Amino acid sequence: MTGTAIKNWQSVQQEVLNRINSRVWKPGELIPNEAELASEFGCARATVNRALQNLADSGLLERRRKAGTRVATHPVRKATLDIPVIRNEITGKGYSYRYALIKSETIVPPSDMVARMRLKPNEKCLHIIGLHMAHGEPYVFENRWININVVPDVFGVDFSEQSPNEWLVENIPFTSGDIAFSALTAGTFEAGMLSCKLGEGLFVIDRSTWKHEGAITSVRLVFAPGYRIHTEI
Amino acid sequence: MTGTAIKNWQSVQQEVLNRINSRVWKPGELIPNEAELASEFGCARATVNRALQNLADSGLLERRRKAGTRVATHPVRKATLDIPVIRNEITGKGYSYRYALIKSETIVPPSDMVARMRLKPNEKCLHIIGLHMAHGEPYVFENRWININVVPDVFGVDFSEQSPNEWLVENIPFTSGDIAFSALTAGTFEAGMLSCKLGEGLFVIDRSTWKHEGAITSVRLVFAPGYRIHTEI
Repeated sequence: MTGTAIKNWQSVQQEVLNRINSRVWKPGELIPNEAELASEFGCARATVNRALQNLADSGLLERRRKAGTRVATHPVRKATLDIPVIRNEITGKGYSYRYALIKSETIVPPSDMVARMRLKPNEKCLHIIGLHMAHGEPYVFENRWININVVPDVFGVDFSEQSPNEWLVENIPFTSGDIAFSALTAGTFEAGMLSCKLGEGLFVIDRSTWKHEGAITSVRLVFAPGYRIHTEI
Repeated sequence: MTGTAIKNWQSVQQEVLNRINSRVWKPGELIPNEAELASEFGCARATVNRALQNLADSGLLERRRKAGTRVATHPVRKATLDIPVIRNEITGKGYSYRYALIKSETIVPPSDMVARMRLKPNEKCLHIIGLHMAHGEPYVFENRWININVVPDVFGVDFSEQSPNEWLVENIPFTSGDIAFSALTAGTFEAGMLSCKLGEGLFVIDRSTWKHEGAITSVRLVFAPGYRIHTEI
């Protein structure tokens, strides 16, 4: 390494990672500053910055302004998950895709949903239940509330043809959102929707998206038994 | 914006995001190249590159060498999850933490685990079952296999004092890993470990980590009913 100029941020990152993993730099220890590393590696300070920031984003370094950069003592590892459009997730696995609209109604949501979407009392939403099928079998159903004041265009859409999942992704950009993963026990409704046994453990994603004007939508996705999300860490 | 120099990659990213969200640049459309944007924004080309790469990493742009950068038609949103040490997750929520070793044995793992960890036939592993408690209640149990050929140091550790989750994070750096999220239906074993009802839906994390020499560990974490992982998108 010594004497060899490191050309890009990826190779700086690899070298820093090697030093962390081989304990040249130990957990909790302060590492040299950007200028020192840039000089050692023979590269621009911005290159070192990019590498260190990336490792900090992964939880392996802790950076504090003025206090410098330390090797994380308890690294909080990060996992990045892809959240694709459901049709693409299903066809990407090589299955045929079909969508069925189960229910569409304009009503006042239950109080937990009013709170989550920060709606006014008695404000109505479009409530849609739709089933996504893979190879003719239930794959996931969506139980969705759409804020008709923020997305008035929904009334021009035929949701028996196109799922709200797809229409919203393609037409209503969001500025922020949150997502939660959990499990539930299949009751009569879930078992009926997914053709599974009562009492099966099901994987659940709750997701809400926002734009400046307010909540766009909040959806619960309940997946058929056996569903897994997988990624690298 | 025009005439004002954009100083850092974050402000370039914000401006690009505004143009995507306001549909100045529409889904599927080619956007100006880095040199053009750098000239428009009055900043370095590397600054534009960093901003565009970050948006590509988030799935909002699609970048292809030579073909240029397009606004993603079907953005695959990414969610980043923190994977903390369990003790820190529990104390971070304000609960007291306690750990109990339930089982420790050195045996040949079942065949699915042999395959997942790419072990030789009849190669023994350290099998540990441990329970993590929050405020005296079961929070999650770990069902873990540790590769004793890759991590021979485990035999010096008293896992009734320290959980393998913590010991491994602090002592055995890994170079790669994978993680999966799913749900299972509580059987007699899970219900007994977590003091929950038979047939409850439980959230599950399966995780394996690797170093150059081979698999370090593979663990299944089964969480008590009601557990959620939450993040921003």
